[in-house]
Amino acid sequence: MRATAKANTNIALIKYWGKRDEQLFLPMNSNLSITLDQFSTTTTVHIHTDRKEDVFLLNGQQEGAEETRKISRFLDIIRKQTGGQWAATVDSINHVPTAAGFASSASGFAALAAAATKAVGLELSEPQLSVLARQGSGSACRSIYGGFVEWKKGERKDGLDSHAVPILEQNEWDLSILSVLVESKRKKVLSREGMKRTVETSPFYTGWLEAVEKDMQLAKEAIFQRDFERLGMVLESNAMKMHATTLGANPPFMYWQSATFDVMEQVQELRMQGIQAYFTIDAGPNVKVLCEPHNEEKVCQVLKSLPTVQDVFICHPGNGVSYL
Amino acid sequence: MRATAKANTNIALIKYWGKRDEQLFLPMNSNLSITLDQFSTTTTVHIHTDRKEDVFLLNGQQEGAEETRKISRFLDIIRKQTGGQWAATVDSINHVPTAAGFASSASGFAALAAAATKAVGLELSEPQLSVLARQGSGSACRSIYGGFVEWKKGERKDGLDSHAVPILEQNEWDLSILSVLVESKRKKVLSREGMKRTVETSPFYTGWLEAVEKDMQLAKEAIFQRDFERLGMVLESNAMKMHATTLGANPPFMYWQSATFDVMEQVQELRMQGIQAYFTIDAGPNVKVLCEPHNEEKVCQVLKSLPTVQDVFICHPGNGVSYL
Repeated sequence: MRATAKANTNIALIKYWGKRDEQLFLPMNSNLSITLDQFSTTTTVHIHTDRKEDVFLLNGQQEGAEETRKISRFLDIIRKQTGGQWAATVDSINHVPTAAGFASSASGFAALAAAATKAVGLELSEPQLSVLARQGSGSACRSIYGGFVEWKKGERKDGLDSHAVPILEQNEWDLSILSVLVESKRKKVLSREGMKRTVETSPFYTGWLEAVEKDMQLAKEAIFQRDFERLGMVLESNAMKMHATTLGANPPFMYWQSATFDVMEQVQELRMQGIQAYFTIDAGPNVKVLCEPHNEEKVCQVLKSLPTVQDVFICHPGNGVSYL
Repeated sequence: MRATAKANTNIALIKYWGKRDEQLFLPMNSNLSITLDQFSTTTTVHIHTDRKEDVFLLNGQQEGAEETRKISRFLDIIRKQTGGQWAATVDSINHVPTAAGFASSASGFAALAAAATKAVGLELSEPQLSVLARQGSGSACRSIYGGFVEWKKGERKDGLDSHAVPILEQNEWDLSILSVLVESKRKKVLSREGMKRTVETSPFYTGWLEAVEKDMQLAKEAIFQRDFERLGMVLESNAMKMHATTLGANPPFMYWQSATFDVMEQVQELRMQGIQAYFTIDAGPNVKVLCEPHNEEKVCQVLKSLPTVQDVFICHPGNGVSYL
């Protein structure tokens, strides 16, 4: 009646951008990520059959009603499957500092899905666990697996075929992923809201859906061939396309800020100097830069020297969910 | 056998982006501009029936073979229409300093079309003159008219219905157009090449063509109603869409540079402070900012205070081609 699981966060190389089902977190397009070797969440779930209210502790602090409700709604999915009457104490430690520029929802819901099902004695396959985690936060379904991971969008209305599958293990190809934190001047448009507005109003969204299918193929080929340059080209171009769709939304918006742009220019400048480095950007101003491990130090140093860069965190491909 | 004409440059509010015919400069979409009250070209054409070679003087200096060939190719169109055997001396003075961030091809070919046809005694209507100027440089067809001008894309293969039409005279609505010159770090992708690559490879180009039709309607309505806020919203969003298409090209590219971004952010910041100002950007790093004349001084001062802004030139709507 008690279990602990740990999950790492992940970074999308081919972006999840647009939902076909808002409730079930079903994506409009398949996408691809690397699970990282740090920035994790460790979650312990205790099951109580004698209580009715869930309790959610984050980093040792009891969370308020709103955050707890999100957890309870997620646990409801498991309660439905077990048929049982129980409440849980969810005790999560986030090793994803907000300052690192990663959302903690991916590692958070992956760890919660694993710990809660184990605590309650529900035996799920990894794809089933991925389907479950997805219903907490879309990208959480990818953190079930380590290394290079594809989230297959699936076709079913109930989402049972929309889950992650492993592409390449973390120890089969080492890459450096630099998370570049920049000075942020403006409040960001929330990822969820931006996605929705883009799907509903951008004249570029159809083009995105066509292009992302091709990008997925190119990215998978590059990964299978360990061809970093080809992977880099497609991941950077995919990120630019995702951000292009927001410029067509009504009203238009941008996640990029001035400092984001400085980093993008610097990465392209590095390539002109012969150093293979490629950027990707999620729904915020920070930038992730990918390079090969032998260039990691040089790239990190150049990026840190930019006046608008606050910090650079270095990651590598890491493992999937584990039980402690 | 000699005539002088003057034409002002113009700035596109709804962009000309993509050609349906590379030779005839036929656009994929109708577009809309303001002819400015400065940054002009004055051109004198002398016709010689006893010579075979055209001569091209720019700002008093004789130009080389390549530039002269462009002029000759344009004069060939007129030679075909007149049937005569003649050569020309084209004497152009550009009052469009390169540093002002405007291409001189619009004012240049508008002035040349007017001066050459008059010198040779060919009487053209304004739409015919616009069709002719278009074959030198697409946007030149708009500089035939003053004020707010629409370039109707036309449907014909020979391009005879692809020319500018006046929408609103320059004295019917005064606006301030600030040309903001920024520090430019990289060599730019040429407008002609970028257009071509985008049409051929960007998955967003279809979306652009759909959206620009709607933007044209909105912009014309806003102009007829002298509704600056509505005009500003649509011109800024149209520019963002044009630039979004380049992010989808293969390989992707951007005309924006870091300093471009600083100006865009500052303009949006001005709006948050209640000052109506809107930006537009062509195929380069510089930014044009539109505001109402009563805000001109304030907007100019704020933009000049940005460290990456080199200079700001202020224009207003001006007149079309004139004969001196």
